[in-house]
Amino acid sequence: MAEKLKIISLGGLNEIGKNITVYECHGDILVVDCGMGFPDNDMYGVDVVIPDISYLTKNKNRVKAIVLTHGHEDHIGAIPYVLREINVPIYATRMTAGLVEIKLEEHGLLENAEIITVEPGEFFTAGCFEVEFIHVNHSIVGAVSLAIHTPLGPVIHTGDYKIDTTPISEGMIDLARFGELGKQGVLAMLADSTNVESPGYSLSERNIGEQLDSLFDGCKDRIIVTTFASNVHRIQQVIDAAAKHGRRVGITGRSMENVMKVSVRLGYLKVPDGIMVEMTQIKNIPRDKLVIITTGSQGETMSALYRMAFSGHKQVEIGPGDTIIISASAIPGNEETVSRIINELFRKGANVIYGKHNDIHASGHACREEMKIMLGLIKPKFFIPLHGEHRHLKLHSELAKLMGIEPKNIVISDIGNVIELTQKSIKQNGSVPSGRIFVDGTGVGDVGSVVLRDRKHLAQDGMLVIVLSLSAEDGGLVSGPDIITRGFIYVKESSAFIEELREKVLATLEYCRMNDIRDWATIKTNIKAEVSAALYKSTKRSPMVLPVIMEV
Amino acid sequence: MAEKLKIISLGGLNEIGKNITVYECHGDILVVDCGMGFPDNDMYGVDVVIPDISYLTKNKNRVKAIVLTHGHEDHIGAIPYVLREINVPIYATRMTAGLVEIKLEEHGLLENAEIITVEPGEFFTAGCFEVEFIHVNHSIVGAVSLAIHTPLGPVIHTGDYKIDTTPISEGMIDLARFGELGKQGVLAMLADSTNVESPGYSLSERNIGEQLDSLFDGCKDRIIVTTFASNVHRIQQVIDAAAKHGRRVGITGRSMENVMKVSVRLGYLKVPDGIMVEMTQIKNIPRDKLVIITTGSQGETMSALYRMAFSGHKQVEIGPGDTIIISASAIPGNEETVSRIINELFRKGANVIYGKHNDIHASGHACREEMKIMLGLIKPKFFIPLHGEHRHLKLHSELAKLMGIEPKNIVISDIGNVIELTQKSIKQNGSVPSGRIFVDGTGVGDVGSVVLRDRKHLAQDGMLVIVLSLSAEDGGLVSGPDIITRGFIYVKESSAFIEELREKVLATLEYCRMNDIRDWATIKTNIKAEVSAALYKSTKRSPMVLPVIMEV
Repeated sequence: MAEKLKIISLGGLNEIGKNITVYECHGDILVVDCGMGFPDNDMYGVDVVIPDISYLTKNKNRVKAIVLTHGHEDHIGAIPYVLREINVPIYATRMTAGLVEIKLEEHGLLENAEIITVEPGEFFTAGCFEVEFIHVNHSIVGAVSLAIHTPLGPVIHTGDYKIDTTPISEGMIDLARFGELGKQGVLAMLADSTNVESPGYSLSERNIGEQLDSLFDGCKDRIIVTTFASNVHRIQQVIDAAAKHGRRVGITGRSMENVMKVSVRLGYLKVPDGIMVEMTQIKNIPRDKLVIITTGSQGETMSALYRMAFSGHKQVEIGPGDTIIISASAIPGNEETVSRIINELFRKGANVIYGKHNDIHASGHACREEMKIMLGLIKPKFFIPLHGEHRHLKLHSELAKLMGIEPKNIVISDIGNVIELTQKSIKQNGSVPSGRIFVDGTGVGDVGSVVLRDRKHLAQDGMLVIVLSLSAEDGGLVSGPDIITRGFIYVKESSAFIEELREKVLATLEYCRMNDIRDWATIKTNIKAEVSAALYKSTKRSPMVLPVIMEV
Repeated sequence: MAEKLKIISLGGLNEIGKNITVYECHGDILVVDCGMGFPDNDMYGVDVVIPDISYLTKNKNRVKAIVLTHGHEDHIGAIPYVLREINVPIYATRMTAGLVEIKLEEHGLLENAEIITVEPGEFFTAGCFEVEFIHVNHSIVGAVSLAIHTPLGPVIHTGDYKIDTTPISEGMIDLARFGELGKQGVLAMLADSTNVESPGYSLSERNIGEQLDSLFDGCKDRIIVTTFASNVHRIQQVIDAAAKHGRRVGITGRSMENVMKVSVRLGYLKVPDGIMVEMTQIKNIPRDKLVIITTGSQGETMSALYRMAFSGHKQVEIGPGDTIIISASAIPGNEETVSRIINELFRKGANVIYGKHNDIHASGHACREEMKIMLGLIKPKFFIPLHGEHRHLKLHSELAKLMGIEPKNIVISDIGNVIELTQKSIKQNGSVPSGRIFVDGTGVGDVGSVVLRDRKHLAQDGMLVIVLSLSAEDGGLVSGPDIITRGFIYVKESSAFIEELREKVLATLEYCRMNDIRDWATIKTNIKAEVSAALYKSTKRSPMVLPVIMEV
């Protein structure tokens, strides 16, 4: 039997090849990343979405390691859930490891976890795989690509990356190493497709610093900056601008505080002595000597910025004079909430700097020309676009063709599909159990499609409960029908209508009695049908109708 | 008493100064536009949102006319609701009138409506107002600005507009007339702020035609184009490109068919003989000789394009070979649904042309430089930015200052606020009843904040009904407690948990008995509190808990 390498994407919500990618060869399994997703707007009540890992738990003895490319939630967020099932060593850079540790500590899982730090340029072995970390630029420090040296040859898994020739620290992406591997011959490349719709090159993180500096220059009052908590380079640049302009820096929002702690401890973030100020002490600092860095760049209703905007923050009340810099872009699906917060800040009289035309945010993902450079350097035999919605993968594969990859050597995967490689061929071959598991509160997986369907129904038109007591002896009405509605109509102004519905229920009971229908289930079905029809006819709405019969 | 002009914005959802604007002078009221809004994603179950017009109904004898700037839903959609309360003459251009007629016919209101057509350059009188129609460019034909000649002087209400130097028909916006009025002296200008975040100039509609032509040029298979149904110029250009390339044209989607009928009848759309083909006949046309124009550019789940993508359309099944041109941009809030449909089309193997970088859509609203031209021509004494979220109005007012309008002469309004003008001053002075009325099914206004709050609660965590029968005699338990849940947990796998909750209810009843708590309301309050606490403790969720007691 010829050697085979299997590659499987588990999880991902709209995006494919995200969250978890599984590499399998000679019976050994290597898990790359362990992320979670955030729910779509119509996944009511769901907090986070994690991948179905039943394929991994079923084969847990063959799983040799989990390796993480970087510390964003969509790459590490599912670790607590996965470690409960499969406890194998986790390999990551120091920063990623630091963020994972916070997460595991919150879940009380840190003690039993084995986390091994690996730096760019270093290798480790997991089963038949030898894994090499290659430094890349991204919107978080400590991000790496992987060269996975398999028995069939090297596979490059880019993870999230961009080419930043002038980054803030850690230096430019290690293009030389990609080129070296490309010259030696790369079997396959799995690459980030996020920004394939954007032509040209991504903006350098350093440009944002220049822009921040000029904004600070012209400002004579308080400055508030919001960005992604994990963007250490951005936070560094805000602190640098503050230092240059003689301003103190306050930090608010839990995730921001967490990341600050880790990145200062690990030396990723350089904080000049005496520049930081506790939020409880900011009232003692003149407004024009203060910068506040806050969470809330996605308009999250529990975030510090939201509370500032809607007057619910303990230390900060927004008003005229405040300059607020939204140093982030809205993640798809968050546009409405971000827009709402910006309007409210304007309404409070603040000067708000936001949006594309202000050069105050740089994406962490490669644009089209950067993707072409990587393809040109790595020159893989086989190409699998990852990390994007279906359209992104399709467009990325078109780009790969343009760069000389043979069309038959490109496969667009889907969640759960098994891609099978030999040294000569690539094909899709079957699939494994996969999908998304909803986490709601402490429940993992107890909210499924039926519960979500009911939530949608309830959200759309509300509900109506009809309760009645029937005699166990002769089936006669003892009490009720009582009708309770929620989310349907304003009941206080609809008493006549509710009375009509009661009449309808009584008529249905009478019909059942006349036709000798005596089992509760059939009576309930009849009531539900009659009432639903009456409701639709008079309101063109279909609330959930729940008849309840008590036997007394 | 000095003469005063009052201007009031009624309605608008996130946008202010949209839907309805009221002009009031010498006791006469002129209503400009009569539009509706679409609900935000979190207004569960709401179909459309219309303005609260109680101020108008209360003063209906003083309302002299309704005048419409153009035929988009956000400017005419509320007419059926308003006409039921206030039947006054409606003034509009022929195209706008045609679209209003369709709408009134659907609501059975056409017979009693008085619709008077006015063309650009013409005037009409309504009370003390003399109103002049001025031709503008917009993404619908028959759009006009209004010069409202009031006893205090002329007020220019731009409506939605752009400057298109090379439009498809009707000619360039009548900049000369704006300039003439500006030279004579304009009291106030109320202007469209939609695209104030976009620098430069908007793209000409003609550019889209050139782009369509080149796409048609390279295509050897079926072409499907989606755009806004009301964009007659866009549809004209698709038909022209089809004619040039020897293709027949099919139309699908109800709103598209409606607009086609009106615009052909009124001569706005020129259709070459024999080019159209019934959708039922397209199977007889070779694929490379066919273009289909369809609704669904916003990803609407009931639209023709959605049904094509998800295999529910009678005549069209998408597959490899199809080229689909999304000639529209996603309206804020629709990004997720549009994205979903595009992914599905890619998944079906189609070639999808979409997005900003393809020049296949032109906005109908002026960008910053166009706004500056209008301000420079009209040179109003007073300026009121309209038609935008708060941040847009703020940015537009900054632009007006740059163009020389005195800051004290600019007012940013809000829904319901009364702006009072004399020839010398402008100020906000009080407010009138205003707000948004939700339309759900046939119900207008019966879904309010309480119902919506309940729908949100139900959507988030579902609900749990607890039913029990208590003896009227001694308050003893006769039957139950029965527990029914929907949208909370998957009940079949949670029977032990439900049993625990039943025990909790029984314990609470026992507690009430021991403490001589006998009124049903207090017992229910106790049950709700105990069960809610238990639910939160074990699941970290807060479903709606509804205890129902039947007295038997």
